[in-house]
Amino acid sequence: MTHALRARLSAVGIVSAVLAGCVSATANTEKERASRPPNVVIFFVDDMGYSDIGSFGSPSIRTPSLDQLAAAGQKWTNFYSASAVCTPSRSGLLTGRLPIRSGTEASQNGPAVFFPFSKGGLPGSEITIAEMLRARGYATAAIGKWHLGHLPEYLPNRQGFDQFFGIPYSNDMDATDLFLGYGTEINEERPDPAKYNVPLLRNEEEVERPIDQFTMTSRFTEEAISFIENYADQPFFLYLAHPLPHVPLFVSESFRGRSAGGYYGDVIEELDWSVGRVNEALERTGIEKNTLFIFTSDNGPWLIMRQHGGTAGPLREGKGTTWDGGMRVPTIFSWPGRINPGVVTTSGTSLDLLPTIAALTGAKAPSDRRLDGVDISATLQTGDTSATNARPIFFYRKGEIYAIRQGSYKAHFITESAYLPDTERTTHNIPLLFDVQLDPGENFNVADKYPDVVAHLIRLREEQASSIKPVENQLDRYDQADRDAYFSAYSW
Amino acid sequence: MTHALRARLSAVGIVSAVLAGCVSATANTEKERASRPPNVVIFFVDDMGYSDIGSFGSPSIRTPSLDQLAAAGQKWTNFYSASAVCTPSRSGLLTGRLPIRSGTEASQNGPAVFFPFSKGGLPGSEITIAEMLRARGYATAAIGKWHLGHLPEYLPNRQGFDQFFGIPYSNDMDATDLFLGYGTEINEERPDPAKYNVPLLRNEEEVERPIDQFTMTSRFTEEAISFIENYADQPFFLYLAHPLPHVPLFVSESFRGRSAGGYYGDVIEELDWSVGRVNEALERTGIEKNTLFIFTSDNGPWLIMRQHGGTAGPLREGKGTTWDGGMRVPTIFSWPGRINPGVVTTSGTSLDLLPTIAALTGAKAPSDRRLDGVDISATLQTGDTSATNARPIFFYRKGEIYAIRQGSYKAHFITESAYLPDTERTTHNIPLLFDVQLDPGENFNVADKYPDVVAHLIRLREEQASSIKPVENQLDRYDQADRDAYFSAYSW
Repeated sequence: MTHALRARLSAVGIVSAVLAGCVSATANTEKERASRPPNVVIFFVDDMGYSDIGSFGSPSIRTPSLDQLAAAGQKWTNFYSASAVCTPSRSGLLTGRLPIRSGTEASQNGPAVFFPFSKGGLPGSEITIAEMLRARGYATAAIGKWHLGHLPEYLPNRQGFDQFFGIPYSNDMDATDLFLGYGTEINEERPDPAKYNVPLLRNEEEVERPIDQFTMTSRFTEEAISFIENYADQPFFLYLAHPLPHVPLFVSESFRGRSAGGYYGDVIEELDWSVGRVNEALERTGIEKNTLFIFTSDNGPWLIMRQHGGTAGPLREGKGTTWDGGMRVPTIFSWPGRINPGVVTTSGTSLDLLPTIAALTGAKAPSDRRLDGVDISATLQTGDTSATNARPIFFYRKGEIYAIRQGSYKAHFITESAYLPDTERTTHNIPLLFDVQLDPGENFNVADKYPDVVAHLIRLREEQASSIKPVENQLDRYDQADRDAYFSAYSW
Repeated sequence: MTHALRARLSAVGIVSAVLAGCVSATANTEKERASRPPNVVIFFVDDMGYSDIGSFGSPSIRTPSLDQLAAAGQKWTNFYSASAVCTPSRSGLLTGRLPIRSGTEASQNGPAVFFPFSKGGLPGSEITIAEMLRARGYATAAIGKWHLGHLPEYLPNRQGFDQFFGIPYSNDMDATDLFLGYGTEINEERPDPAKYNVPLLRNEEEVERPIDQFTMTSRFTEEAISFIENYADQPFFLYLAHPLPHVPLFVSESFRGRSAGGYYGDVIEELDWSVGRVNEALERTGIEKNTLFIFTSDNGPWLIMRQHGGTAGPLREGKGTTWDGGMRVPTIFSWPGRINPGVVTTSGTSLDLLPTIAALTGAKAPSDRRLDGVDISATLQTGDTSATNARPIFFYRKGEIYAIRQGSYKAHFITESAYLPDTERTTHNIPLLFDVQLDPGENFNVADKYPDVVAHLIRLREEQASSIKPVENQLDRYDQADRDAYFSAYSW
């Protein structure tokens, strides 16, 4: 590796410190609380694009709560989900491991995510953030969407969560009527929740079916607030995984027609309200200074949903692809008085959350298996990016490494559109190379200019591929007849 | 017009008030200052794209000064330049009139902007913001790029500016060597200023030629600060029109290699530094609460410049086109204690600045001619958008109305790429119609769905076209031999 390359690889991660918040004298109860390990809230949204938030460039949607957190905390502009689709993204976030290691990455012809006909799930042998923190004495709750297996043995209560209130898979599943297909103008501003026979579970019990999707955001928010209020006196982990803005879009009556960004904007503005309500609850219970709040999305915007899909802004493509629009997601870390405020342009990934949370809480990260994330707590606390500057991020699809990012460079070995008619798969013997810091739209291939970077990333891909041990593919566990029957109701 | 249409046309302009700044008790001198009409600073940049600023979505470029102004003031996310290229954009901003009214809009085959071979300029009969404010007792200065005619009779001193320090036209003009052409990899990270024989003028006197372009941003900033310091005790108007980030890109040594966003990012971060320095000077002289500070760009990013051009983020296309990427520009208004802080999603245009400044300063806007902007001071001060919600914005090119935006709808009557090989001009008998609030990328034509909107905008186009009185085209004033000789040095 040349000196210039090394410099470029590490030039991308300077944190700008802005206006550190003034920490007032702590009362005794605050002192006592501060000696406890911090609470952790992961506020996870579904299919929200990079530029669907005001401070990430939305021209139409107003998100004052997120913008305020971004300004007072750290706004990460180069943060990636673990996958471009739902199931593997969630397994990666919760385990700190590439989905391919747990068998939750799609195979060549298998389904991309768990469907109602699926029989698999995140294996019980995997250790989630919830399991790790429960072992540290945390109360744990999963609220919202799960999508890591809906048979009882795979539900959140079997993966370290004391409690679960939510839906087992995506809100567009289990269509009760002929499903007219995506990519057309099916999206309605007043969809019928009865058309999607999605159950609402409390722990492992079905309490409503179909769930009234209009109330999802508000009810999951209220459930989160109750959990915070009930457990304010002990360390807790709240995994609040809102099912929206995944289509079909539903919004509370009080948010309908409110956003300049239309119906999609209404849905985002209700989620921003949820962010505000959760943070108000942390303040009201006096624990906001002892709580790490993380906001991120499971993948990029579902572009074929047209005005019901979000926007990746300056990034290329969207959900389902390994272009940056599919996996670079708006991400904010907030922890008043502890996070060094600023904009972080170094790369991060949701795989980093488990090791980082371990470091910040004193919990014990699993040591008997390969973790794929790195501890970014130094970046959060001091702005130091030395641990993250040069580490590679792997973009998998269908069990293969399609792309690698290291420093500011991203190499594409395979490119393929998602959901589009022209979804042709192209293998690049000499990978496409983009400097995604200069060229966030991945427009200008610079492979010819940097042959040493290309050679380095080709080697890295080979090393990485050889580190993967084959495991049973959980997404491929289904009866073909069930799969056929399920999709027979779909008119693509 | 249907009721639904009317509602949609006016649903786009709600200002969210966030945390109004705390105004401390005013000292006597402050009171005295507050009774004076406010100073006005227009900080104008060249070819900066919608998402080249952190708070407008740049993932790589850090702009803490602009972000802070955006958070404390008003961030306008639907603000348009008066044109998609330099000269007409500037004439529109300074006169409050569509460039076609002053003959500064390109003709069908004429040059798009003034070139060194041009003999025209903004006519002396036009009344600029500087003339208007000078009549109100303001000291006035133009610093940076002019580009409204470089013959003495057209320079800033003849258009109401007491002083001028800057360059008469674009920084890529007057190439001394074979110009290799745009759209190729000509852009160097250490360009030679001697290759562009651009003069630096103080008032009408040439003081350096070629100007050392590496020092442009810093020297124009220092000049602006001197002006502020010298005139802090009387009302002033400062028009600081930085020539960058128009190519060729130049940056101070202290900013080189600083940005994650590469060389282009370095240039933007130096401009952000300039924003910070100017605002520091306003604070240091105690006049920040009596100064309206406006930041905007003359048009969208010059996309063919590749990594040396900016990004329009979620918007379509860039400089030179009437797609939103060509004319929707990042715009911030700041006036501590007077501007109602928030994000404004209603549409505005640089044509609004003259009538707005007139309203805020008590200056007399020209009443003997048609003005094309509206007074947006109510929006700035209270968030009320009633004056702006329904007014149309016209997108001209080559003397024709290519597009109209009204409310959230934008109709394209003619579409044409800029600078690209496939620059085919297409006339749409039924215009393309986009709801640019829901669909900022102008991807989904909804003309079929809203025939009444289409019919309304067709009528509006006819009315508007009939309001234009023919005037001499200033851009067409040149000798063909001079034009041929000038471009003979260009290898396109």
